Amino acid sequence: MSVITIERKVLEKNEQIAARNRQIFQEHGIFVLNLVSSPGAGKTSILEKTFQELRDELNIAVVEGDVQTDLDAQRVARYGVPVIQIVTSGGCHLEATLVQDAVGNLDLKELDILFIENVGNLVCPANYDLGEALKVVVLSTTEGDDKPLKYPAMFLNSSVLLINKTDLIPYVNCDLNRLRNNALQINPSLRIFEISCFTGAGIPEWCNWLRKKEV
Amino acid sequence: MSVITIERKVLEKNEQIAARNRQIFQEHGIFVLNLVSSPGAGKTSILEKTFQELRDELNIAVVEGDVQTDLDAQRVARYGVPVIQIVTSGGCHLEATLVQDAVGNLDLKELDILFIENVGNLVCPANYDLGEALKVVVLSTTEGDDKPLKYPAMFLNSSVLLINKTDLIPYVNCDLNRLRNNALQINPSLRIFEISCFTGAGIPEWCNWLRKKEV
Repeated sequence: MSVITIERKVLEKNEQIAARNRQIFQEHGIFVLNLVSSPGAGKTSILEKTFQELRDELNIAVVEGDVQTDLDAQRVARYGVPVIQIVTSGGCHLEATLVQDAVGNLDLKELDILFIENVGNLVCPANYDLGEALKVVVLSTTEGDDKPLKYPAMFLNSSVLLINKTDLIPYVNCDLNRLRNNALQINPSLRIFEISCFTGAGIPEWCNWLRKKEV
Repeated sequence: MSVITIERKVLEKNEQIAARNRQIFQEHGIFVLNLVSSPGAGKTSILEKTFQELRDELNIAVVEGDVQTDLDAQRVARYGVPVIQIVTSGGCHLEATLVQDAVGNLDLKELDILFIENVGNLVCPANYDLGEALKVVVLSTTEGDDKPLKYPAMFLNSSVLLINKTDLIPYVNCDLNRLRNNALQINPSLRIFEISCFTGAGIPEWCNWLRKKEV
């Protein structure tokens, strides 16, 4: 029982700091998205495509969360976007306090959009509010259409689902209709975009939605 | 600090039960493999292919770990293999005590191989010994060749790496040589098999290795 009590306290403390982060983001009018997914679903590739489309219109920054290495931050930095790397050194999710520290290194005044790329993990980040406006869950078609049923918390706690790697549909065992239905069965209000970072399909629709900053 | 102390105690308790599990498995001469990977890397498909090749020669059973649903257990049961489902209800990894309970429902006397299919998570299961002979990490080519560097603990704690979905190599951004080198940089003693559950490539080599039960 003591472990459960400790966990509850950790989550309560996290929520307090997340609320403070959220207030700061709202005061500055920054649209903050927490990107979550399995490893290799394409979070960083989606950021790269998004920068190509939006960087001339909007001021974007990134907080990169990784268990180890700054490989993703290096990829993002090539686009001239301000990026702060958080290395969790084995930690399986980002927490609000890490984001608070990272954001202290960004100039928030001119910022329109902040992406927080979480650790690649479809389980643990679901329970940690970072102060974001909303969570965006990325699922690649190669992972299979049953994943929303098997990892429901992440789909329940997210507002947007990006179905990535749709170019691979001919080669993998994934039924897009079944995937959509499984996701909506868990969370009927999910906003779904089908995209491919390889062909660019769906990226304009996703970026149009970002321009409107619909929470 | 108190959270770290609690975590250490949880891990110590887990290791005690894992040691007990290991002793029971060794007494019965059962080769136990802990299958770990990201969601959708192909753990269950690999089990299906392995059953097709080995079920007439060896007595195999499966412990299925899932955050939610018994979809994987249903898939496995179709092959006439005894299967025990553990639903963690949100938990991000299996623990030794869950495996201890599950194994109590299996007839261990005639068993040759026990597969424990862990929760799809490339981070947390790395630190939890279940009493297995070894961990087998599955990585699909669609996840990208940088993953061993980004999630090193899992590759360091595993003895075997199955590179799955090699049939998708022409369509994805994954260099097999770089993937192998990255994995061996983290763990030079990793035994690597390149497989495809779609074409069947590499499955005979993997099954030959299982027949020899090399720890």
